[in-house]
Amino acid sequence: MADTDSGGVRSVQRAVELLALFDADHPSRSLRELVEETGLPKTTVVRLAHTLEQVGLLWGRGDGQYVPGSGLLRWAELAGHTWRLPEEALRRLAELSAASHGETVNLYVRQRGSRVCVARHEGTRTLRHVVRVGTRMPLWSGAASHVLLSRADRADVLAVAAGAPREGWGEPLWERVRRAAEDGWAVSHGEREPGVSGVAAPVFDRAGRLSAAVALGGPTVRFTDEAVAAFLPHLLSTARALTILDCIGGTA
Amino acid sequence: MADTDSGGVRSVQRAVELLALFDADHPSRSLRELVEETGLPKTTVVRLAHTLEQVGLLWGRGDGQYVPGSGLLRWAELAGHTWRLPEEALRRLAELSAASHGETVNLYVRQRGSRVCVARHEGTRTLRHVVRVGTRMPLWSGAASHVLLSRADRADVLAVAAGAPREGWGEPLWERVRRAAEDGWAVSHGEREPGVSGVAAPVFDRAGRLSAAVALGGPTVRFTDEAVAAFLPHLLSTARALTILDCIGGTA
Repeated sequence: MADTDSGGVRSVQRAVELLALFDADHPSRSLRELVEETGLPKTTVVRLAHTLEQVGLLWGRGDGQYVPGSGLLRWAELAGHTWRLPEEALRRLAELSAASHGETVNLYVRQRGSRVCVARHEGTRTLRHVVRVGTRMPLWSGAASHVLLSRADRADVLAVAAGAPREGWGEPLWERVRRAAEDGWAVSHGEREPGVSGVAAPVFDRAGRLSAAVALGGPTVRFTDEAVAAFLPHLLSTARALTILDCIGGTA
Repeated sequence: MADTDSGGVRSVQRAVELLALFDADHPSRSLRELVEETGLPKTTVVRLAHTLEQVGLLWGRGDGQYVPGSGLLRWAELAGHTWRLPEEALRRLAELSAASHGETVNLYVRQRGSRVCVARHEGTRTLRHVVRVGTRMPLWSGAASHVLLSRADRADVLAVAAGAPREGWGEPLWERVRRAAEDGWAVSHGEREPGVSGVAAPVFDRAGRLSAAVALGGPTVRFTDEAVAAFLPHLLSTARALTILDCIGGTA
C-alpha cells in the first residue's frame, strides 16, 4: 500500500516534469526527446505520455511529435482567475517601473523552497532584468527571497539555505532575512547571478499575512546606493498599494 | 509492479480531477469540499493535495482553503504558446461572427472522446451561445462533433457513440458523420441541448489532416434553413482561411 502510494506521488511529479520539458523554445517534443530529457525508461515515458493524453494535457499530434494538450487551456483559465492581477495592480507595477527609469518590476510568491514570479512589468532599458511569469527561482538568494522569508522561523530559513549549492549558507541567509524583517525591505547585489541586483519589499494580505514580495531588478551598475535610495520610497508605496488591493493568489 | 503502475496512472488522473474542481465559481476549496466532491478517502485527498502543493499546482493558503497554485502560471504560458491563435485567425473568427449577425463562433479540436473549445469569438446577441475556451464537451453530439469525426472509421464512431447517454446512438451518429464527410459541413438542432443549434466546417493542417472544426452556435429559432444557407459560405471560407493559416495546436 505504501509502495503504491509513493508510486502515485512519484507519477504525479514525473507527469509534471514531463510537461515542464515543453516551453516556448520546445513547443513540440518527440518520444525520443522525452526519454532522453527525463532519463526515464521508455516504457515509463510511454505510459506517462498515454496518461497525460487521456487527461488532455498532452497531445500526440500524429507526426511522431507531442505538443501540450488542449486541456492546459482549462488550467490557463484557472491560473488567470487566481493569479491575474487586477488592472489597478498592474498599473502600480508599471508606475514603479517608470519611477525607476525603466527597471523591471516583478512580483514573487513563495512556493515551498522556491519563489515564483506571478506578475511583472518588463523594463524598457536595453540591458534589463527578464523573468517570465510562472518562472520558479531559488528561495535561498536575492532580495525578494529575503523579504519572502522575513516572517519564517530560523529552522525554516536554515532548511531553505540547505538547498543552496554553497556550503554554510544558513547563517548568512538567516542574517539577511532578519535584516529584511527589521528594515521592511531588502537589497541584494549579485547574490544569485553576478551583475544582477534587486530591491524588494513585502506585500501582505487582508489578514496581515505576508503574501508576496514586489521587487525591482536590474544590472548592479545601475543599483548604486544613491539609486536604491531613490527607488525605495516608490517601492514601499507600491508594496503598500498592493497590500491594500489584497489581490495576490485569490486572496481577494 | 503492475499494481504500482496502475496506481501511478490513477494518481495522475485523480490529481487532474482534483484540480478540475476549481473554476471561476470555485476559486478556493476547503479540504472537506475536496473530499466531498471527489468522493475519495480523506487520506488520499490529503496525500494528493500535498503532492500537488509540492509541484506548485495547488496552494494551501493557510486559512484552511486551497487555491490553484502559482505553478499553473507556467502551464498557462505553455497553453498560450501552443493554443493561442494568431491575431489573423482570431480576426477571421470575429468576422464570421459579424457575418452571422452576432452569433457565437467556436473552434473545437478532438480530444479522444471529447471536443475541446480552443478559441472563440463570443456573439453579441442578448441570447447567445457561450462556451469558454478550455471547456470539454461530448463528441457524440452536435455539428462540430460530426465534422470532427468525419475522417474517423466506423469502429471509432461507434465507440464514441457508446459514451452517449442514449441507447442505440451508434447508427444515427455514424449516419450524421458520413453526411458531414460527404457535404464538407454539418448542421445540428437541439442534439446536445434543446433549443441550441450549430453549423460546423472542418479545418485541416498543412499535412491535410483534420485538425479542428469551426462552428457557429446559437438558438434554434435563429438557425432556420434560410439563415443556415446564408451563414454557410462565410463559414466555409473561414474554415479555408484557418486551414491556410495552419495554426491549430502548434502545427504551424
